[in-house]
Amino acid sequence: MSKFAERMTTMEKSAATIRYLFGAMNDPGIISFGGGAPAKEALPIDIVREITNDIMRIDKRGVEALQYGPVMGVPDLREIVVNDLLAPKGVRCNVENVMITSGGLEPINLMCQLYINPGDVILVESPTFMHSVEIFEMFQAKCIAVDMDDNGIVPEDLEVKIKKYEPKMVYVIPTFQNPTGRTLSLDRRRKVAELGSKYDVIILEDDPYRDIRYSGSDLLPIKAFDETGHTVLANSFSKIFSPGSRLGYVLANDEITAKLFDAKSATNSHTSMLPQIICAEFFKRGYYPAHHKMICDLYRERRDIMIESIDKFFPEGTKRTFPDGGLFTWAELPDGINTTELLAESTGNPEVKVAYVAGESFFTEGNGKGNNCMRISFGGVAPEKIRIGAEKLGKLICSKLK
Amino acid sequence: MSKFAERMTTMEKSAATIRYLFGAMNDPGIISFGGGAPAKEALPIDIVREITNDIMRIDKRGVEALQYGPVMGVPDLREIVVNDLLAPKGVRCNVENVMITSGGLEPINLMCQLYINPGDVILVESPTFMHSVEIFEMFQAKCIAVDMDDNGIVPEDLEVKIKKYEPKMVYVIPTFQNPTGRTLSLDRRRKVAELGSKYDVIILEDDPYRDIRYSGSDLLPIKAFDETGHTVLANSFSKIFSPGSRLGYVLANDEITAKLFDAKSATNSHTSMLPQIICAEFFKRGYYPAHHKMICDLYRERRDIMIESIDKFFPEGTKRTFPDGGLFTWAELPDGINTTELLAESTGNPEVKVAYVAGESFFTEGNGKGNNCMRISFGGVAPEKIRIGAEKLGKLICSKLK
Repeated sequence: MSKFAERMTTMEKSAATIRYLFGAMNDPGIISFGGGAPAKEALPIDIVREITNDIMRIDKRGVEALQYGPVMGVPDLREIVVNDLLAPKGVRCNVENVMITSGGLEPINLMCQLYINPGDVILVESPTFMHSVEIFEMFQAKCIAVDMDDNGIVPEDLEVKIKKYEPKMVYVIPTFQNPTGRTLSLDRRRKVAELGSKYDVIILEDDPYRDIRYSGSDLLPIKAFDETGHTVLANSFSKIFSPGSRLGYVLANDEITAKLFDAKSATNSHTSMLPQIICAEFFKRGYYPAHHKMICDLYRERRDIMIESIDKFFPEGTKRTFPDGGLFTWAELPDGINTTELLAESTGNPEVKVAYVAGESFFTEGNGKGNNCMRISFGGVAPEKIRIGAEKLGKLICSKLK
Repeated sequence: MSKFAERMTTMEKSAATIRYLFGAMNDPGIISFGGGAPAKEALPIDIVREITNDIMRIDKRGVEALQYGPVMGVPDLREIVVNDLLAPKGVRCNVENVMITSGGLEPINLMCQLYINPGDVILVESPTFMHSVEIFEMFQAKCIAVDMDDNGIVPEDLEVKIKKYEPKMVYVIPTFQNPTGRTLSLDRRRKVAELGSKYDVIILEDDPYRDIRYSGSDLLPIKAFDETGHTVLANSFSKIFSPGSRLGYVLANDEITAKLFDAKSATNSHTSMLPQIICAEFFKRGYYPAHHKMICDLYRERRDIMIESIDKFFPEGTKRTFPDGGLFTWAELPDGINTTELLAESTGNPEVKVAYVAGESFFTEGNGKGNNCMRISFGGVAPEKIRIGAEKLGKLICSKLK
């Protein structure tokens, strides 16, 4: 058979990880701290039914929902992004610079279409989100890891690596990062934006968790410090509305937006209309504030139980993050525990049956880094199951240290 | 600012055409034979309202509609593709080989991800669908045109060019082709499939119009003659259900399907869930046969009026196709008429205000070929407006010949 393009080879390793994860999440007999899906209780099912029922009675909106639509997205929804989601976070922008995408990953794909030639370097956090790495590798980019600490990516190391590798792009998840749950400090946000401008590098700010904060105070996005248009902000409706709707958005300057239009048109023409209209209406009818409070309360409880359970059941010497929001915490286990090896037992042993994501998968360095770490999701698991799962997992880990 | 990737340059020309067309279609004061959108009367608005209302009352389906879903698509809908859409057309396949995509263009994009390295050759029909060319050029493919006649792509010329250019892919729209409305004959379908197998070339069969036939008899798809897995069939729900839902599908062998999974995952994870579930339910509740008859009756009338009006009002020496289905006819005007130049007058002159797509845009040869041709869409225009628009356009053309 015909030979596949080179990119299918460069993406093979990360694609295999993603395939594995998609498979592993579907075993109903497992308590899964593995997935990144929102709680089903956080999905606005009744609201969506009501809205759909209404809009499909209005002839004009019904036609709009089912007919071809604009490449840039539904105007209402773009206005909501500007006025309801970005302005309150300190980002002022025009509707013309906001494009609606099919989920929050599509902007990552589109930005690669715009900028990445094979062999180009993308700087990423260490660790970073594996699904984005899959995209970068499909575009035959070379991912180089930049140091992180509890305050996020380290600007000094970032500057050194920008100078050394001359990257096309820096990929940062600044808030409640996937996988660590860490948040980039305000001062560093400013510095990252400045480095983009100073060295003429695109800063791709991927910020899907920022709107679900359970403690601490909001920080300005990196984009708020961008004075030259080098920062491009990608976000998603998956955590605040619904992931199955596949809705996200990207904010960029005029020059980049014009090219995003072309790349989107050549990817899938435009994003599905009905979900866009329903989501716009969800905000316009004023449902968001109460829904937002409900989901933050729900996740705050789960986070607190998860943290409490880890502290209680995981062995001494475990380090874990305390995320002020988002869906993940990150645990670093005492030396000698290999989380990649442990996973088979933790999911396969009928006395345990608990899943997580092994830390190694999130490091692009590929030298076994992070093999004593695990990403632990609490968003999609009911409180009682969090307690049971963390206890079982903690006991399994402890048994390995004896 | 950072330099864009090379692909953004190679796609610039076709992207500019697409941008122009998206702009031109939105002038409400114009009778537009330009767009390829279905009639608004063909959109099942009431059915979608009823279905959504029902499914969002069933807790499990409501969660399914709003939560993350499978990369390959909703199982119900994939089964409908196999049993309701492909089996009756003579294509037998497994559900595992069908992936649901975000519209009918996404399979074209994904197949390029799988196969196209910069500089690879794709053979296309002359003329062909410009939006696919935009995708091919984003992937830095070289498009080489293959001769067509009234029976579609000419197999003899195809074989010569396969041997000469060693293409990665042959792109064919076999039924009621965009832009010509022509249909590839049965004998040629078999030959095209055989050439793919013989020379180890992917045949990408893009068949979005095949299900809306108004006269003549169904022909087996190219895929039905494929014995080696070299033919990949892409199709769309845009014409038979709703374009705004952005739903399509692709059928491929196991090896290709596995790679399509990876490319889809790295593009936008999966297609929006609610439209998939609604569309599946549209078939499962048995709405399709009556809806299908309704839209075919609607379009048949429009086609007949368009053909009759062209014959009546266009100048002697005009050649036009008679499409047995689909949304377009193609007119070749007497020499001396340049349709690219005429378009400004036909849309701008307040006595005319009729749009079409100039033929030149559909030829990848770029040597002025087709500059006396036009693609004329009849699907989205009400019968009375077809008569008025065709008369005005015909008179304008005649006035140029005096």
